[in-house]
Amino acid sequence: MRDHAQNAIAECLRLAQFTEEPGRITRRFLTPPMRDVHERLRERMTALGMSVSIDAAGNMRGLWQPDGASEMRLIIGSHVDTVPDAGAYDGVLGVSLALELVGIAKERAHALAIEVIAFSEEEGVRFGVPFIGSRAVAGRFDAALLSLKDSEGVTLEAAIRNYGLDPARIPDAVLDSRAAAMLEIHIEQGPVLEAESLSVAAVTGIVGQTRMSLRFTGHANHAGTTPMHLRHDALAGAAEWISSVERLARETDSLVATAGKIEVEPNAANVIPGAATVSLDLRHSNDKERESALESLLARAGEIADRRGLRLESKRLMDQPDVPMDERLTAFLVEAIEALDLPQKRMPSGAGHDAMVMAARLPTAMLFLRSPGGISHHPDEAVREEDVENALRVGDKFLERIAAELK
Amino acid sequence: MRDHAQNAIAECLRLAQFTEEPGRITRRFLTPPMRDVHERLRERMTALGMSVSIDAAGNMRGLWQPDGASEMRLIIGSHVDTVPDAGAYDGVLGVSLALELVGIAKERAHALAIEVIAFSEEEGVRFGVPFIGSRAVAGRFDAALLSLKDSEGVTLEAAIRNYGLDPARIPDAVLDSRAAAMLEIHIEQGPVLEAESLSVAAVTGIVGQTRMSLRFTGHANHAGTTPMHLRHDALAGAAEWISSVERLARETDSLVATAGKIEVEPNAANVIPGAATVSLDLRHSNDKERESALESLLARAGEIADRRGLRLESKRLMDQPDVPMDERLTAFLVEAIEALDLPQKRMPSGAGHDAMVMAARLPTAMLFLRSPGGISHHPDEAVREEDVENALRVGDKFLERIAAELK
Repeated sequence: MRDHAQNAIAECLRLAQFTEEPGRITRRFLTPPMRDVHERLRERMTALGMSVSIDAAGNMRGLWQPDGASEMRLIIGSHVDTVPDAGAYDGVLGVSLALELVGIAKERAHALAIEVIAFSEEEGVRFGVPFIGSRAVAGRFDAALLSLKDSEGVTLEAAIRNYGLDPARIPDAVLDSRAAAMLEIHIEQGPVLEAESLSVAAVTGIVGQTRMSLRFTGHANHAGTTPMHLRHDALAGAAEWISSVERLARETDSLVATAGKIEVEPNAANVIPGAATVSLDLRHSNDKERESALESLLARAGEIADRRGLRLESKRLMDQPDVPMDERLTAFLVEAIEALDLPQKRMPSGAGHDAMVMAARLPTAMLFLRSPGGISHHPDEAVREEDVENALRVGDKFLERIAAELK
Repeated sequence: MRDHAQNAIAECLRLAQFTEEPGRITRRFLTPPMRDVHERLRERMTALGMSVSIDAAGNMRGLWQPDGASEMRLIIGSHVDTVPDAGAYDGVLGVSLALELVGIAKERAHALAIEVIAFSEEEGVRFGVPFIGSRAVAGRFDAALLSLKDSEGVTLEAAIRNYGLDPARIPDAVLDSRAAAMLEIHIEQGPVLEAESLSVAAVTGIVGQTRMSLRFTGHANHAGTTPMHLRHDALAGAAEWISSVERLARETDSLVATAGKIEVEPNAANVIPGAATVSLDLRHSNDKERESALESLLARAGEIADRRGLRLESKRLMDQPDVPMDERLTAFLVEAIEALDLPQKRMPSGAGHDAMVMAARLPTAMLFLRSPGGISHHPDEAVREEDVENALRVGDKFLERIAAELK
C-alpha cells in the first residue's frame, strides 16, 4: 500500500509540471497543459486496462470493467484544473488516488466496475464559473454557460471547440443509470485534521453559504474639528459589527463567519470615514442555523446603524444551500476508518467540491486527508505519505463494501 | 456694521471667482489666480489709505498707520490660498474681515496701526508642506523648503521667481519688533458652534496631534475551511481596537481620536484577513493628555494582538505639540464677546491655522465663526451674515482694547 501512496504523490508532482506559467503551477480549463495531463492520464488508464474517453466538457473518463462484475459502477474522481500559483495536490491527488485504487482493486480482484473521472474544471478561474466539468457529468450544465468569455474574449463554446471537442455533445456526458455511487478523495484545505492530529475524515456534507455586502453610510468630517459626540463614523460602526460577527460565530457551534473585505470612503487618516462597505461570508452545514445567524447579524447591523445615525444598506450576493453527503456511503467510510484502527472523524467541508455537484445526481461520499499547515491554493500545499496511505486503505475497504453491495 | 458684514461676504464671493479650475474654487500658492487676488487686495488696501507690499514669500501686506498712532502695530490676517474644490470662506474671510476692520478703525478713529497680512500659502496643497506664508513672516522658514517640487516638477524657489519675487529676500519678510500682537479670524470648520447655537468663540489654542499607523498581522486562510478557534484574523483584531479608540475618546474630555484609513490584505470576501493597517489621528489641547491616551491605546493594541496571536507593528508618523493662544489677548476676545451680550465661549481649534505658526513669534489670538453644517473644504462651505457681523463687532472692541494697550 505504501508503494501505491508513493506513486500517487509522484504522479501529482509529475502532473504539476504541466503548467501555463513556468515556475508556478497554473492550469486552467482546456489550456495547453491540460492536454499534457490528459495524455499522461490516458497512458496510465490504458496501462491499467481501462477504456478511455474524453467527454464534450473535457472530462477525462476511464472505465475499469473487470470480468464477472456487474455493469453498475462506482465513480471515483476529482478535478485536474488548478488556481493560479497552486499547489500540486488540490484535486489532482483525488484523481491519482482513483487510479491507484483501480490498481488495488485489480490486485485484490474486487468484482467492481469503476469509472474514474478527471473533472476538467472545478476552480472557476478561466470563465468565472466553477464546476463546469461536474455540472456536465451531473446533468446540471446550462447551455447559457457556453457564452461565457475568458479574459481574452474566448467563449466557453470556442474553448471546447478549439480543444477538438463538440459542445453540442455535452448532454452525452451525463452519467446513466449504471452509475451507482460516487467517491471523491480530496485534501482538507483547512487546519482541522492537523489540529486534531488526524489522518483522514469522512465528510458529512458541503456547508451552505451566504455571501453579503453591508454598507454603512455616515458623514465624512474633519478628524480634528468634529467632537466625538457629533460624529457619524461609518468605520466605527462597521468595526462594532465586525466584532459582533466574530462573537456570534464563536458562540455558535460549526458556524464560520468572515468579514474579509472592507472598503472605506474617503479612507484618509485625517477624515472621519463617511462610508464603509463590509463583506460577510457565512457558512454552516445546516441551512436553518445559517439563516438564523444571518437574521441575527442583520438585526445587529440595523441596531448599530440606528444607534449611530448611520444608513445601512445590505445586498445578498450568494445563497447556496448545504449539500449533505449520502449517509449510508458516509457510514461505509466511517466503518472503514474504524476498521483500520484510526480515530473516527466526521466533519463538514467548508469549501465547495465536485462531490457537491455530483450529490444531486447520485449517492456521493467524500474523504478528506489532512492538509499540513492547513495550506492550500498555495505552492506550499503538501500531503503526508502516511495520510495518503491511510486514504488508500480506507478507499480499499470502501471498494470492498461497494463491491459487495453491487454484486 | 451690517454693511461691513455684507461687504466682507461679497468680497469673499468676488475672490472666489479667481480660480485655477472654472466652476470650482481651487487656488494654490502663487498660481495665476493668486495674482488676481493680489490685484484686488492692492486696490482695496490702497483705497483704504494703506501702504501695500508683497514680501518674498508672496504674502500681501498692507499697513494702516493713522496719524498720532504708535508704530507698534496689530497684525490681522489669514490665508488666501485654497484646497482643491474649496468653499469661498476658509482663510479668505479672515482677510476680508481684516480689511473691514481697518475701515471700521478709520471710521472710529482708533489710534492704532494695523498690518493686514494675506498669507500666500496655508493649505500645503501645491508643495505638500503647509504654512509657507506664515513660516516666512514668523521667521520659521527653512531654506531647505525652496527645493520642494510641485506635481509638475517646479521647485518652490522657481515658483517664487516666476511670480517676480526674490527667494533670497525671504528673511526680510520676518516681522520686526513693531509687531505687538496678532489676531486671526477664521471659520470654525467644525460643528461645535452650530450644535451649541453660538455665533463666535475665542480659540484657546491649536490642539496637539499625533498621527500613527498600526499594522496587525495574522494568517490569511480559507474563510470556509478554517474554524473560528483556529483563526488569526487581522481585521477582527483591528476592528476590536477601532472600537477601543472610539470608546477612550468618548470617555476622555476634549480628546478626539479617529481611525480614518484601513487597508486589509488580501481584502477578499472569502479569505480571512491576513493583515490590517489602521491609521490613528489623535488630538488634544493638552500634550500630556494626548500622550497618556496614546500610551493607553498602544497598550490596548498590544493586548489585543497578544490575545489573538497577531503581530503588531506601529509607526509614529507625526507629533505636533499643542500651541496655546496668548491668554491675555484671548481674555480680551472673551471680554469683547461678553460686552456684546453674546454667550461666552472658549474652545480649542482641532485644525492647524496660520495663528499656530505666528504664536511662536508674537502674542496671538484667534476668533472662530460658526460653520453652518460644520462644512468646510467643500463648495457648500457657508457663513451666516449675523455671525460675520458679530465677528466684526468683537473685532472692533478688540481693536479698541489693543489701541488703549499700545498707546
